[in-house]
Amino acid sequence: MADQKIRIGIVGYGNLGKGVELAIRQNDDMELFGVFTRRDPEQLQLATDGISKYRVEEAETFKDQIDVMILCGGSATDLKEQGPQFASLFNTVDSFDTHAKIPEYFESMDHAARESGKVAAISVGWDPGMFSINRMYGEAVLPQGKTYTFWGKGVSQGHSDAIRRVKGVKNGIQYTIPVEAAVNRVRHGEDPELSTREKHLRECFVVAEDGADKAAIEQEIKNMPNYFSDYDTVVHFITEDQLKADHSAMPHGGFVIRSGKTGAQQDTKHIVEYSLKLESNPEFTSSVLVAYARAVYRLHKAGESGAKTVLDIAPAMLSAKSGAQLRKELL
Amino acid sequence: MADQKIRIGIVGYGNLGKGVELAIRQNDDMELFGVFTRRDPEQLQLATDGISKYRVEEAETFKDQIDVMILCGGSATDLKEQGPQFASLFNTVDSFDTHAKIPEYFESMDHAARESGKVAAISVGWDPGMFSINRMYGEAVLPQGKTYTFWGKGVSQGHSDAIRRVKGVKNGIQYTIPVEAAVNRVRHGEDPELSTREKHLRECFVVAEDGADKAAIEQEIKNMPNYFSDYDTVVHFITEDQLKADHSAMPHGGFVIRSGKTGAQQDTKHIVEYSLKLESNPEFTSSVLVAYARAVYRLHKAGESGAKTVLDIAPAMLSAKSGAQLRKELL
Repeated sequence: MADQKIRIGIVGYGNLGKGVELAIRQNDDMELFGVFTRRDPEQLQLATDGISKYRVEEAETFKDQIDVMILCGGSATDLKEQGPQFASLFNTVDSFDTHAKIPEYFESMDHAARESGKVAAISVGWDPGMFSINRMYGEAVLPQGKTYTFWGKGVSQGHSDAIRRVKGVKNGIQYTIPVEAAVNRVRHGEDPELSTREKHLRECFVVAEDGADKAAIEQEIKNMPNYFSDYDTVVHFITEDQLKADHSAMPHGGFVIRSGKTGAQQDTKHIVEYSLKLESNPEFTSSVLVAYARAVYRLHKAGESGAKTVLDIAPAMLSAKSGAQLRKELL
Repeated sequence: MADQKIRIGIVGYGNLGKGVELAIRQNDDMELFGVFTRRDPEQLQLATDGISKYRVEEAETFKDQIDVMILCGGSATDLKEQGPQFASLFNTVDSFDTHAKIPEYFESMDHAARESGKVAAISVGWDPGMFSINRMYGEAVLPQGKTYTFWGKGVSQGHSDAIRRVKGVKNGIQYTIPVEAAVNRVRHGEDPELSTREKHLRECFVVAEDGADKAAIEQEIKNMPNYFSDYDTVVHFITEDQLKADHSAMPHGGFVIRSGKTGAQQDTKHIVEYSLKLESNPEFTSSVLVAYARAVYRLHKAGESGAKTVLDIAPAMLSAKSGAQLRKELL
């Protein structure tokens, strides 16, 4: 282990930023240098006493004192601009998760990081992230086969937001739930063709405003294009108190299943399954970010630069243990 | 994709060698150059017509015509000597699986491969192999937690051999079976301390010789130190015909489960599970070997040399797809 700890900066202090702060505590070879925010730093209540808080504009000043910046903003708004800005000054890790825009984001981060000679790990987390790794290993090891990804049971932020935009809705939350019958067919190697509706259910818990037309709300949700109309959707009306009491955690998870065939007749079946059951989506995601911060630090020390995804980074780079230790203890 | 296919040689043609031969067919960017055997090549019956068969001593002649040699011998006898010999001439992949001797084997392969400027991927398969990767990711991402590995249901070659050495036993096979109650406790995040007996059962199907004392056989098996005495062992007596009809497949599999905790109070639970259900242990193992042959070929082309384990090799190295394709399709 190096004597010098890896100095981490956090940019953005929402659920993810807080998760990163807590995850760093679990890694003895790292220390939190400070938190950078667009809000008033004075107002920021951190989980740890004595950690420095800065305005995001001050970050450049600490260019030589921070080994890796973990960018905890959202893909939709923050990262697109913030990502390349930070990659031009720091090694970075982020959780950019707008799948369709990853190629474009990769290019802009790669450009910025090559210019600065830094390493930028993008789209780190569990999907994209650990799930991507498992999709890739599954396909590479069993080229003849099918890959299935199921999400849930878990809260979808996007779908929860969509519910809350419906007229007469005061508050609400949406759970994505994998259809068990479909998961079981896949696990049994049936290789089914599954429609969107057959793979996932959507369950909504809605707080209606006083006097709102609940039947109308339910219909509007169920028929909402893109978000709900292609799914079997269940709507429950509950009170604000129930929502707070029973639905304030952010669980998530899911499965990546590779169903493959080998042999002379291509009839020997194999099922590879990777599954996550997470009590807190942001806390798990931030734990992944922190492990990749270690990898980024090492890759940069080894002279690499540019953007990387989880697919480009060898597993051992994530571990605080030496190669010899890993071979002895984990191989 | 490169125009030139990756030319693979197979050393040793048992179940694993045959599996490699079949797995190469599933990968368009590879071709089988030939099979090298210590037996009489004339007598070797390959699954594919027209593939060249050679004596293992002839291998050196083809030094420049083979990109990667996949070593399909066993760890106990063949690989210890054969490994370094081949690594001094070729890029290699092997499935060395004597866990306790991996550090020593790594050193000797690393030395040979550095001298020759080749790359040697050692201990590739599913355990060591895919399971090792998952143990490592689990620990790195969730540093506070416990890792559990369960094997089975599957045939253990070592335990089957042990049964067959018992006096009065004509033939036999042993299945390692994870104890479901233990697996479920782990899956529910109980983090139990599990004894050897609590984790796995051993089920034996035994063909006794005519007139043998079955009660004595059963006692001898159940009390055999190291192999059975620490386990709950079930012994069934069957006929040779039943053994052939019902027990000639080589299924295997198992689970790696990481149970971890995060959060300010370290009380947010996460369960990460990787599971394999394999209808044929050798066919799956050889599919993993072939995917890593691609990685070895590329690492060598990129100027690397020395021994590598699955932990040292980035996921993307295994895939025939380009980085851009992977980011678009799988990330």
